[in-house]
Amino acid sequence: MNITAFIGSSRAQSNSEQLTDYVLEGIPHTKIYVKDLHIEPIHDLRHDANGFQAVDDDYDQIIQALLTSDVVIFTTPIYWYSMSGILKNIIDRFSHAIRDERYPQLKEKLSTTEAIVLAVGGDTPSIKGLPMIQQFRYIFDFLNMPFSSYIIGEGNQPGDIVQDERALAQAAILNKQLKAR
Amino acid sequence: MNITAFIGSSRAQSNSEQLTDYVLEGIPHTKIYVKDLHIEPIHDLRHDANGFQAVDDDYDQIIQALLTSDVVIFTTPIYWYSMSGILKNIIDRFSHAIRDERYPQLKEKLSTTEAIVLAVGGDTPSIKGLPMIQQFRYIFDFLNMPFSSYIIGEGNQPGDIVQDERALAQAAILNKQLKAR
Amino acid sequence: MNITAFIGSSRAQSNSEQLTDYVLEGIPHTKIYVKDLHIEPIHDLRHDANGFQAVDDDYDQIIQALLTSDVVIFTTPIYWYSMSGILKNIIDRFSHAIRDERYPQLKEKLSTTEAIVLAVGGDTPSIKGLPMIQQFRYIFDFLNMPFSSYIIGEGNQPGDIVQDERALAQAAILNKQLKAR
Amino acid sequence: MNITAFIGSSRAQSNSEQLTDYVLEGIPHTKIYVKDLHIEPIHDLRHDANGFQAVDDDYDQIIQALLTSDVVIFTTPIYWYSMSGILKNIIDRFSHAIRDERYPQLKEKLSTTEAIVLAVGGDTPSIKGLPMIQQFRYIFDFLNMPFSSYIIGEGNQPGDIVQDERALAQAAILNKQLKAR
Repeated sequence: MNITAFIGSSRAQSNSEQLTDYVLEGIPHTKIYVKDLHIEPIHDLRHDANGFQAVDDDYDQIIQALLTSDVVIFTTPIYWYSMSGILKNIIDRFSHAIRDERYPQLKEKLSTTEAIVLAVGGDTPSIKGLPMIQQFRYIFDFLNMPFSSYIIGEGNQPGDIVQDERALAQAAILNKQLKAR
Repeated sequence: MNITAFIGSSRAQSNSEQLTDYVLEGIPHTKIYVKDLHIEPIHDLRHDANGFQAVDDDYDQIIQALLTSDVVIFTTPIYWYSMSGILKNIIDRFSHAIRDERYPQLKEKLSTTEAIVLAVGGDTPSIKGLPMIQQFRYIFDFLNMPFSSYIIGEGNQPGDIVQDERALAQAAILNKQLKAR
Repeated sequence: MNITAFIGSSRAQSNSEQLTDYVLEGIPHTKIYVKDLHIEPIHDLRHDANGFQAVDDDYDQIIQALLTSDVVIFTTPIYWYSMSGILKNIIDRFSHAIRDERYPQLKEKLSTTEAIVLAVGGDTPSIKGLPMIQQFRYIFDFLNMPFSSYIIGEGNQPGDIVQDERALAQAAILNKQLKAR
Repeated sequence: MNITAFIGSSRAQSNSEQLTDYVLEGIPHTKIYVKDLHIEPIHDLRHDANGFQAVDDDYDQIIQALLTSDVVIFTTPIYWYSMSGILKNIIDRFSHAIRDERYPQLKEKLSTTEAIVLAVGGDTPSIKGLPMIQQFRYIFDFLNMPFSSYIIGEGNQPGDIVQDERALAQAAILNKQLKAR
């Protein structure tokens, strides 16, 4: 089972990455640090006569990960009540990716790729993070990806997540479920 | 009355910009095209000993606009059920801006700056755009900005927005209200 | 075209009913005042060996309306951020109705019955009424009913709705659309 | 510490009640079965010259519970993506209760009464139950009640909740937290 985690934080060793580490403890996986990639924002050319143009950046690493993973984890801090802008730029580029002639198999592959969301926020995330979860649901529905689970943790200062007993309990259960496959 | 519209689309003459033009017809205003600015993503250094570091990009234009506007319009296409990534990066940087020692007056200024959201999407935006509206509400609440109104339009192909009679009627009312001040 | 409006307010001449009157001006329709019906709450017997039992109340009027209407309007005040409890009891009983052997055609009929929601609330309904709209969407999706549109008006004191220019403009457009069929 | 659970299910030994039992295991508490009370729906007389009129039903039991509890648990099955209609009728009557001259202390009391929501649903409740959670948040915000936590469980057939490992883990943590006070 191939698991890739897209780490959407702007910080190293962020709370959201730590939560991901709990979920993936003892399980082989790949992490992609979004902050370390050069990703151009989408240029929406869906309606242009020539369609989307090739973009010279690191996005192919994202596509390769999507094409080779059974489970994709979207790890994000909750910045201003939604995913980080750098992760959002990754998502926005899906509009191009699913039309990219080099990857005709992408859409079908995604329909069997399980999606998980792991998010940590500081301002009442169990309530104010819910619109973001609803958006991820719409995203995965559009891509026909099974959205198997999400965890919302609470944390502000670096390391806070280890105090969120509820998030850690959910991480432990998810860890066990992933191991059992 | 100073009005600034942040245009969050990746396209020129986008549906969301057109909707903004209806709202601002006959009213002096400034437009800032986010896609034409060089904006670095946030590097979250809130908890770093040295705090945020100066960033050499165009963000000061955003701050100047916020400091001098009575009304700020956030114009965005609905990409994947939320604001565009490039606009989200602008929002993410608020975390730095409100702590920027060069602009000690920013937070107080925002508390009297009216916020408006104009969004256009293609996939049932009147339903699937609602989480984004809830997020804007949380954003403006955090910043203590009055969130006076929003319009969600429907459009996919360029120019579609002119067919959305309901969005245009709301734009006309908002136009009249802004003129009446 | 048969149109039925379920009026979910506890008051006569409520703001939500007035909004409905704007939408239906000059269009033949039937109103059912939920407050005047005797409706038992659902008794969830889905998993009981004998299934649901016949209930002796006025619910058959609801079912008859659903079976004979092309458009069904759910009119509700926003009480505590969602539909009124008396209207919710009507909705809850759907669980029984769609399993009622006397009405085997109900589910199929609903799949061609257009649903409209008209709601008026007093506490920032354009934001705090949105979860209710999302719920109606889920309800209509489950029943496979096309959810063609909704209007959220603002009002607190009786008659306030006439001041909500935006809601009235939307009502006028919907009125025109219904007349054009 | 006084704890009261309002049980909003229409069934005996419902999944949502079972979840409540896990949360309250070994902790003294009172249960009020909403289905067994005679509660009139709200008659909104806020704007009537004479105001609300005394209602002859069992609602005083609700008010007494609110006045004497440190923690109030709202237990509900998720019927059609929100709380049950019978529980909603209890909530709707708050409009009357907080204006009831016999209970001038109610509003202040609520501001120190902790609220917990325990809900179980069958149709993707971790996503489709979120608007209901947002509504409870608005309700508790309006009443100034601290909303300390919620658990959403999944279950359809009676007893299903015992299979929802995640909900049970959260219940165990909440149980421990309540015991520690």
